[in-house]
Amino acid sequence: MKVVCIGSGNVATHLTYALKAKGIDVIQVWSRDLANASELAKIINAVAISNLNEIDRSADLYVIAVKDDAISTVADALRGVKGLVVHTSGATAIEVLSPLKNYGVLYPLQTFSKAKPIDFTNVPLCIEASNEEALEVLKGIAQLLSSPFYEVSSDKRKILHLAAVFACNFVNHLYTLSDKIVEHFELDFEMLKPLIMETALKVQTELPINVQTGPAVRNDEQTMIKHKDLLNSMPELKEIYQTLSKSIKKTHL
Amino acid sequence: MKVVCIGSGNVATHLTYALKAKGIDVIQVWSRDLANASELAKIINAVAISNLNEIDRSADLYVIAVKDDAISTVADALRGVKGLVVHTSGATAIEVLSPLKNYGVLYPLQTFSKAKPIDFTNVPLCIEASNEEALEVLKGIAQLLSSPFYEVSSDKRKILHLAAVFACNFVNHLYTLSDKIVEHFELDFEMLKPLIMETALKVQTELPINVQTGPAVRNDEQTMIKHKDLLNSMPELKEIYQTLSKSIKKTHL
Repeated sequence: MKVVCIGSGNVATHLTYALKAKGIDVIQVWSRDLANASELAKIINAVAISNLNEIDRSADLYVIAVKDDAISTVADALRGVKGLVVHTSGATAIEVLSPLKNYGVLYPLQTFSKAKPIDFTNVPLCIEASNEEALEVLKGIAQLLSSPFYEVSSDKRKILHLAAVFACNFVNHLYTLSDKIVEHFELDFEMLKPLIMETALKVQTELPINVQTGPAVRNDEQTMIKHKDLLNSMPELKEIYQTLSKSIKKTHL
Repeated sequence: MKVVCIGSGNVATHLTYALKAKGIDVIQVWSRDLANASELAKIINAVAISNLNEIDRSADLYVIAVKDDAISTVADALRGVKGLVVHTSGATAIEVLSPLKNYGVLYPLQTFSKAKPIDFTNVPLCIEASNEEALEVLKGIAQLLSSPFYEVSSDKRKILHLAAVFACNFVNHLYTLSDKIVEHFELDFEMLKPLIMETALKVQTELPINVQTGPAVRNDEQTMIKHKDLLNSMPELKEIYQTLSKSIKKTHL
């Protein structure tokens, strides 16, 4: 199987590493910026290109891992190829690829950082395809990577993407705010790390609604007043404290 | 060393389990509700009591792990004892114990659930004491439990407690909300679990501000508009989406 990777960001990088590690031949990496394409391409022994016209039209699989609003431009450039074309976006419907013959979606429901290697056995892959044969190819890739996979429609995938904003992006921002608080008072974020791990571990076996702790769920108004006083010098955090405490109280009425 | 445990909640339970496992003799467990005291006491081979007058006055250490607003009542009942009296509250100043001779604080910066055993090597203990000797006892306990420990004043401890609300209680609530979203659209929370783990793992080695991802930090207005539309039937979540997105944008200006 010959693969062309279109994009050189976090998803492109980790997915091509993983495919390469399983013996898949990634022949080209495209990026608008040739330097970025080269950086990834040299690691996986592929050819770096920065012009969509240079894409090899005989590949078996084209993975589009670019910004959401650039997907349709790439799809246009791939018109007429026989290979399977997939995008990796959570928020973009499969229809953006409808000008193509065989197309689908391979959305990894995971957060990727360039610096940190990722184990694909922990990456749920949400797959969707324009036809049965394409679906089988995507299942085969998921199995090759030993990734759990789910057949998910475009409508449901965008819901997962939204839920991931709450469970990952917003959560990381709360970590940032807790760091801001300890920094502001000359304490060390290091001290909070075991708590952060345990909080995530807990919901691997329990439903989060059943393990909620803290002053809001206990209706401990005294503590909440003290906390808000401490945040007087950080009005933005105070607003978030109020909004989330109110929501916890409402959820656990 | 003879220990009396006052309280039978999550902190009391896990701390006495850990002390017992290290060969410390926990002689009594007090709870207002004798049934609760008995449940914990029988596991660690202690005597259950429900009257503060029955507390053994010759113990070496009294651990007060009750609700914050009940600490001073317990402290009053312990007036005159020679042993070291500590409370385990993040939000309560050490002075609440000032009627006593030797006193201190042993605040575990961790989230405890009854159902889930906890490894104390992952529980940072924040310690504070009324005198040098008492401080040495608390350091000795931390070392016995192989827990990382930090000397933290009452003023700084309440900051840590506040930061923990953001990094644990609010984070868990966001997990609850993400579960609500997937449930609402008949998807499975299971799919989000690897993402939740990876998000927590990432900040063990990177500062959260450096690994923020998602539409808000990218200023991807199109996606944010679509997300808010999806939340039209869940106005509370929409408000949280807006508040946190705004804060992410401001933080990463």
